[in-house]
Amino acid sequence: MTAEPSNPPGGPLPMVVPADGLPPRVRIHEVGARDGLQNEKVTVPTEVKAELVHRLAEAGLTTIEATSFVHPKWVPQLADAEQLFPRVRDLEGVDLPVLVPNARGLDRALALGARRVAVFASATESFAKANLNRTVDEALAMFEPVVARAKESEAPDDLVHVRGYLSMCFGDPWEGPVPVPQVVRVCKALLDMGCDELSLGDTIGVATPGHVETLLRALNDEGVPTDLLAVHFHDTYGQALANTLAALRHGVSTVDASAGGLGGCPYAKSATGNLATEDLVWMLQGLGIETGVDLGRLTATSVWMAGQLGRPSPSRTVRALSHQEL
Amino acid sequence: MTAEPSNPPGGPLPMVVPADGLPPRVRIHEVGARDGLQNEKVTVPTEVKAELVHRLAEAGLTTIEATSFVHPKWVPQLADAEQLFPRVRDLEGVDLPVLVPNARGLDRALALGARRVAVFASATESFAKANLNRTVDEALAMFEPVVARAKESEAPDDLVHVRGYLSMCFGDPWEGPVPVPQVVRVCKALLDMGCDELSLGDTIGVATPGHVETLLRALNDEGVPTDLLAVHFHDTYGQALANTLAALRHGVSTVDASAGGLGGCPYAKSATGNLATEDLVWMLQGLGIETGVDLGRLTATSVWMAGQLGRPSPSRTVRALSHQEL
Repeated sequence: MTAEPSNPPGGPLPMVVPADGLPPRVRIHEVGARDGLQNEKVTVPTEVKAELVHRLAEAGLTTIEATSFVHPKWVPQLADAEQLFPRVRDLEGVDLPVLVPNARGLDRALALGARRVAVFASATESFAKANLNRTVDEALAMFEPVVARAKESEAPDDLVHVRGYLSMCFGDPWEGPVPVPQVVRVCKALLDMGCDELSLGDTIGVATPGHVETLLRALNDEGVPTDLLAVHFHDTYGQALANTLAALRHGVSTVDASAGGLGGCPYAKSATGNLATEDLVWMLQGLGIETGVDLGRLTATSVWMAGQLGRPSPSRTVRALSHQEL
Repeated sequence: MTAEPSNPPGGPLPMVVPADGLPPRVRIHEVGARDGLQNEKVTVPTEVKAELVHRLAEAGLTTIEATSFVHPKWVPQLADAEQLFPRVRDLEGVDLPVLVPNARGLDRALALGARRVAVFASATESFAKANLNRTVDEALAMFEPVVARAKESEAPDDLVHVRGYLSMCFGDPWEGPVPVPQVVRVCKALLDMGCDELSLGDTIGVATPGHVETLLRALNDEGVPTDLLAVHFHDTYGQALANTLAALRHGVSTVDASAGGLGGCPYAKSATGNLATEDLVWMLQGLGIETGVDLGRLTATSVWMAGQLGRPSPSRTVRALSHQEL
């Protein structure tokens, strides 16, 4: 090479070439401020979290999971939910789901004006035990009145949207591969109790595209429509984006991702982070799938956030673009 | 979480769930020892390179690009091709392609017994100029007698296989997006001059799956059969494995990858490395696609090689597995 390349006009962006059979638009469910920060070692000040949510909204994200109304003893990183939520709840045109582990958390969230809440179930006994100290069915029984109470608090012009997270849908660190029928059973239980949406989590990042398709098909076969399903992939083994592509081909149009890959430290021995929103947006933009996200602004936000955390972003797109552009 | 997970029986491996319409077997063209090491800052001793190739073969790889017979002035990292090749050429059941930039390089390679060679063309004028100081057509004219001479050296029971690398098939750092017809033209020229296989390179990692499908379809439309095509993706923007999945769906069954992601340093400002072979093998194994590769042995090799280079592997699978298993 004899010369350094100059940036081409318009900066480095993928060429837009649609593929057949994909949804025209994807709703990105941004989880960095909740799922991401909850798994970072550094506890971030409330004003930084509020700025993060505001910047994510300015970058065009319209579903931004803001925090968790869990007991501070369990998730000290998000102990400031009560202080944070009022600082972001008035964002125009942005849905701000919050995690609620139980009735107490739900009441705290509703009292502050939250209208999108999420419960967090497990497809495996081992993780239900480790995370909730309950069996799978005991955990479902715990969530049932929470979902019911959320729905009871609705008014006809003021609905409450309930998301059911389901973790360990593909593999479990104690149990290994998770049988598809076991996952389908818990999915149906969550929908039966009133969840409006399910987020299928590959919590340890082991899934591959055939497994994703098979689970989605099995859910359809049991009467679960694809438009109630979101996918939540982790990039532990580098599979998250390929799995997302498989889900898109199946018709899924809600994808969870974390700005800058928040939640997975690149220098930790095991990088178990969420799919980075920027890597997702790069692919969707190249495929001509509308997201409303401005990749440059989002990347700038993740670079800023990495500075707050004192470490680089694990997102490949953030690292490539921030070298070239920021 | 109340307890650390123990490894499930058999260790962390993806559940095998095939997907429709994919090839039953993929030939991995391992480029770590050539394309990888050529782009590392550290120059590796010949005995370490020889051990790398031997270990890759022991891990089950059957196509291992060994080195480049280029002038040492241009690629000092591979200046020892003459010393290295005799130390690996007798590996049983392994093809050992080498890069030959010109007739002089070809003669050196053939004299040492190489029977698979590769030339390296560009789809764009800017990269042809930067890399070869020629126009695209001048570069093709330079390769034509090289390919002809390789073919002339064949005997009926001792064929010479010629691969044509084509770089910048999707985007170019100077020119931006690369028009598909421009790529198709150079592909056809390489096949017309006698190349047995083409490796379509996304040298700067900007491609997305629709672009990949469109190029493959355009080549078919011009009479190029898919079984002459290999794909060579870089993970700069995290897209390599999703693009590979798109290529597999199109019927491509030769995929280039680099053990441990050799050639892309995780701590460089811009990580522009090849797709890591381990991340690829994880996906193929999960899809039930045969590769012959033992993921544990391959990962151990990449961890060892990372030690030789004094830095961790950028492969997510290597990092996840080496934490858990090695």
